[in-house]
Amino acid sequence: MSLPETLAEPGAQFLAEIREQPAALRRLLEQRGQFVDVAARVRPGLVRMVAHGSSDNAASYGVYAFGLLAGQTALRDSISLTVYYGARLDFASSTVIALSQSGRTPDVLEYVLRAKRAGAFTIAVTNNPKSALADAADAVLPLAAGAEHAVAATKTYLNTLAALALLAGELGGRGDEVAAGLEGVATALDRELPLLERAAASIAVPFASVGRMFAIGRGPEFATAREIALKLLETCQIAAEPLTATDLAHGPVAALDSLFPVWAVATDDETLPVVVEAAARVRAAGATLIASGPAAEAIADAQYYLPVPKPPEPLLAPLLSVVAGQLFAGAVARAKGLDPDRPRGLSKVTLAR
Amino acid sequence: MSLPETLAEPGAQFLAEIREQPAALRRLLEQRGQFVDVAARVRPGLVRMVAHGSSDNAASYGVYAFGLLAGQTALRDSISLTVYYGARLDFASSTVIALSQSGRTPDVLEYVLRAKRAGAFTIAVTNNPKSALADAADAVLPLAAGAEHAVAATKTYLNTLAALALLAGELGGRGDEVAAGLEGVATALDRELPLLERAAASIAVPFASVGRMFAIGRGPEFATAREIALKLLETCQIAAEPLTATDLAHGPVAALDSLFPVWAVATDDETLPVVVEAAARVRAAGATLIASGPAAEAIADAQYYLPVPKPPEPLLAPLLSVVAGQLFAGAVARAKGLDPDRPRGLSKVTLAR
Repeated sequence: MSLPETLAEPGAQFLAEIREQPAALRRLLEQRGQFVDVAARVRPGLVRMVAHGSSDNAASYGVYAFGLLAGQTALRDSISLTVYYGARLDFASSTVIALSQSGRTPDVLEYVLRAKRAGAFTIAVTNNPKSALADAADAVLPLAAGAEHAVAATKTYLNTLAALALLAGELGGRGDEVAAGLEGVATALDRELPLLERAAASIAVPFASVGRMFAIGRGPEFATAREIALKLLETCQIAAEPLTATDLAHGPVAALDSLFPVWAVATDDETLPVVVEAAARVRAAGATLIASGPAAEAIADAQYYLPVPKPPEPLLAPLLSVVAGQLFAGAVARAKGLDPDRPRGLSKVTLAR
Repeated sequence: MSLPETLAEPGAQFLAEIREQPAALRRLLEQRGQFVDVAARVRPGLVRMVAHGSSDNAASYGVYAFGLLAGQTALRDSISLTVYYGARLDFASSTVIALSQSGRTPDVLEYVLRAKRAGAFTIAVTNNPKSALADAADAVLPLAAGAEHAVAATKTYLNTLAALALLAGELGGRGDEVAAGLEGVATALDRELPLLERAAASIAVPFASVGRMFAIGRGPEFATAREIALKLLETCQIAAEPLTATDLAHGPVAALDSLFPVWAVATDDETLPVVVEAAARVRAAGATLIASGPAAEAIADAQYYLPVPKPPEPLLAPLLSVVAGQLFAGAVARAKGLDPDRPRGLSKVTLAR
């Protein structure tokens, strides 16, 4: 079956999937019963998340979702320690959350098999509940994002964030609050996506000649910085590096100059002053600054502003903040004549070890 | 007191401190008694490492040192979760290792104060045993690297790796083996540094015009990839991003082209085939490849080779691999007319939040 002509335009799938995110989020919320059931089986100890690419970026968010909603320590675990080096770690009180939209990432699958044998409770969070990963794990949480065709992930990333927040919310007895918040995010996106799309397109053209960028955020928004940097790498061939607002000062600030733009994600939470300070350091270095996130306006003297709506609660801000970056990456790719649906050298399912 | 003329040359301090690393390593080994004492007090549960910059890169190594030598799960913990968001995590069975050469990093200090109140056993690993961080922690392990003057860390990074390996070794009952291995690393560096220095200088000039790079490694050598990328950012203003060999395939490979060099760290351990595969992907994308690490020759078709000596045991390879990158960064900085002793916009002690 060939695609309709309009969908065959460069970046059409990527854009269609960005636009579909509010609907994808609502489909996830329809699965809430499964989150309640799985939460009841989670161990009280360590939450070990394993993933690559966008799913690993979402895991950076999971650290905050589990810490703040459930008081549980969650980490992005080393896959190689278990899969390649055969370390003998204590998995008995651990819950493993394996994140893979395809459910086919080889070393994530192998990690789950080994962790399960070592006594962990294992959960697959995947957009393919019929995958090998789903078969291997003790429990499955479906992303329910619908088929994703563009190589660069968008709606599966958003739904992975939502799945982690929802599971952590159920664990912490705050499932209703998180579910209502996610519904609020879907509503805000429905309303604001067309405006955001135009705003992103309006600032994209000067970035067609950019070769490198930093993306900074802190706390839960570090995940956003990571994911936006990855979109820029994948779809625009921009060497974009994610940094926490604090790490920027520990070295990387030395590389900044007027040809080195920085994307700053600002959110109304306890780390806002740190992000504002880091943004001031960026401007002092003469670099071009793009202020985004729900508190973009707290950043002074940015050349570009791409604010997103206020979230129903601060912890859900990353579900809104990332959308501005997705749209920006799509617009810059078009300005560069690249096709974000089919980035050079990538395929949708990454089977690389 | 003014510096002697020869030391005042751009990069002279940076180079002098790179050369001093074998001696610095031996000074650390003289402190072994303190590592034995502190190891006896470490809790059997989670090891939470907190740090920024080069110290945080060393923490990436600690994940493998504790996992492989002591069978303990170690993580690079979120500082902001505890310091800014006040998450209520269970610290009772945790050991905190705070890594800071200056002992003055504000949020690392604040994290230690809070973790200690919450019941953690806290260890400061620092080059300044009279610092606020050393005062705050339950125990101190001195880096004993001697005063470090160049802004870009070298010998404190190497000694932080060594301190983590030694502590993990003592915990796992393998202190003698690790101490002997570290002595072997010092001997190998004594012997090979002059050759490495010449080899790095001989390939540096073409990189003076490079704006962006990737550095790839896996397992313990991911720390090396991170640290070399940071040196290139700090001293050469190159936008260098560290990636695990596997993550390269999950998106970033799309950005590669002939103007985008990749530094690959290859080591004789279980991840070597993965790194070799990733390097082949880099060459297929037309990018310039620099093969380094003790198993550099396992990588086919690299344009440049910068091998380092074989380590006494595989886990100690990162202490050798990083030195090639330090020397390369210094040589590229000189080729660009930059002063690696005083990178623009940085100071030796980072007090940024």
